[in-house]
Amino acid sequence: MNLTGSITLAHGSGGRAMHQLVDDLIRQTFTNPLLAEGEDQARIPLTELTANGDRLAFTTDSYVVTPLEFPGGNIGTLAINGTVNDLAVGGAKPLYLSCGFIIEEGLALETFARILQAMKLAADEAGVQIVTGDTKVVQRGGADKLFINTAGVGVIPAGFSPSAGSAQAGDVIIVNGWLGDHGVAILNARGDLALDADIETDCAPLNRLTEAMFAVCPDIHCLRDATRGGLATVLNEFAERSGVDFVLKEEYLPIRTPVRGMCEILGLDPLYLANEGKLVAVVPADAAPAVLDAMKHIPEGRDACIIGEAVEGDGHVILQTAFGGERIVDMLPGEQLPRIC
Amino acid sequence: MNLTGSITLAHGSGGRAMHQLVDDLIRQTFTNPLLAEGEDQARIPLTELTANGDRLAFTTDSYVVTPLEFPGGNIGTLAINGTVNDLAVGGAKPLYLSCGFIIEEGLALETFARILQAMKLAADEAGVQIVTGDTKVVQRGGADKLFINTAGVGVIPAGFSPSAGSAQAGDVIIVNGWLGDHGVAILNARGDLALDADIETDCAPLNRLTEAMFAVCPDIHCLRDATRGGLATVLNEFAERSGVDFVLKEEYLPIRTPVRGMCEILGLDPLYLANEGKLVAVVPADAAPAVLDAMKHIPEGRDACIIGEAVEGDGHVILQTAFGGERIVDMLPGEQLPRIC
Repeated sequence: MNLTGSITLAHGSGGRAMHQLVDDLIRQTFTNPLLAEGEDQARIPLTELTANGDRLAFTTDSYVVTPLEFPGGNIGTLAINGTVNDLAVGGAKPLYLSCGFIIEEGLALETFARILQAMKLAADEAGVQIVTGDTKVVQRGGADKLFINTAGVGVIPAGFSPSAGSAQAGDVIIVNGWLGDHGVAILNARGDLALDADIETDCAPLNRLTEAMFAVCPDIHCLRDATRGGLATVLNEFAERSGVDFVLKEEYLPIRTPVRGMCEILGLDPLYLANEGKLVAVVPADAAPAVLDAMKHIPEGRDACIIGEAVEGDGHVILQTAFGGERIVDMLPGEQLPRIC
Repeated sequence: MNLTGSITLAHGSGGRAMHQLVDDLIRQTFTNPLLAEGEDQARIPLTELTANGDRLAFTTDSYVVTPLEFPGGNIGTLAINGTVNDLAVGGAKPLYLSCGFIIEEGLALETFARILQAMKLAADEAGVQIVTGDTKVVQRGGADKLFINTAGVGVIPAGFSPSAGSAQAGDVIIVNGWLGDHGVAILNARGDLALDADIETDCAPLNRLTEAMFAVCPDIHCLRDATRGGLATVLNEFAERSGVDFVLKEEYLPIRTPVRGMCEILGLDPLYLANEGKLVAVVPADAAPAVLDAMKHIPEGRDACIIGEAVEGDGHVILQTAFGGERIVDMLPGEQLPRIC
């Protein structure tokens, strides 16, 4: 397909122009047998699901990040990895994604094609297929360039049931590496700060990592990716639902110096910054060494570390500072950074 | 939840305000056991799938209709029925939906609650559950009030395989009633026409209807809902993929007088108008009487009728006019009515 020019309302009309966009660009890029059938739905033999476990996992996220492209990724990589990760942290093997585009009239076809290409690469890396989709176009000013929704299905092996409500006193909290990179990368890419931090998004698929973790510890108590709202939000959800407190050691928190510096300049708290390739695991203390070791053998877990523990309590997250002080880390009351994902 | 006021950026932040919106309004409205688990994904026993057939059906659509509310429905009813229908016309029993909201800052909470309520009613009517979701908020001007994405999963009973490429010469074309109502209802609701046509959207779930049709004819050749692009677009897809021609009899086409009148005034062709509760079936001629009879026993099929037949050919749709003339009905080259669904 000729990629000069831009998206017009005709590309969303249901007629010939839309069929060309869908067939010649989208299907061509995402190419796989299920898409090739050309139906309005993908049809997947149930035997392919039952071979992988006993429960279907089903999730969705919309992506509205601005700008569309930023150091280390774009809205397309986010849309694939975000949904892959939502499945993975539930214990599932991610298998199939749907993809819904809402495009603002005027988006350059070249930009759209580049984002599609990034989605294909991300899907291949994560081992998932984009098998069904939808394209809508709205008039100029009706949306901001491009929004993407992905929904995903996967299968959860028997016995894996991580849940926000399963943390127990004595459990250990593990993260797989540097916190806040995505948030800072996006802020920086917006360009109105004129800061020179060389930070890329951490956007990455986490399913290889979670597979390795479950292999050594099928009984992971809580597992979640720390996206919007950051580490603090995830731990507050776990604490509230489990009825325990979490105690974090400030000096254990893996935060890069430029991220910490940018947060200080801007008055942001890195605990609330969004990540797109970071998970938070709460595991039984006796399993923690094996989980950490398994994580360090996977690229996405290389920098894994323990950041704290669960204690008897009533649902709070407490940060012990390097100077011996303590403060409650509450859930973010309002809004920190809009359109971060 | 207090419904005065409107959506703010904080409702999309991942923090406390978003959790309140999601827990107190969205989960409360859609209430069901899978949502109640409070995880970022729904977990569905595979036995619930294998009990219903041998293939998973998976589909998605985004809805960007304007205005949000119109005679006979709103964007929420559309988002449920549209995805239910995409599953149903593939032969599937629709089971579970995901739901992704992209909300413009400033949307009245009352409006959002009304749309959620309509979604719940539509889901109940269709017998599906909304089991997972996502909420994003963009700043004023970043989107137009509200966009909704739904993805759906269902299960296809063994042996059902309608496909756009399966039409054969001799087959009969059936629709389940009046064409173009949705398109005209939306046009009218936009209010800039000052026409007084009293037309409601035909938005309805079609899964009861398709179930009755498959019960008497498991070998339905082609089946599709005639949404964006209308009857003409669906039949062109069938004709191209099957390598047959379709001959439509103009006097058989069920089009209400006010719809026909509005099309004449505006220079629109009712064959391209969007429907949200209409399907097009291509069935073996000998099965047609039983299929028609089964359809007429279901409310959504009461006005079902034969509109033409498939003949040997090379992929064209031909309209025989009441006066004995013939014209080719091509796929819409460009754009007729943006944001109709």
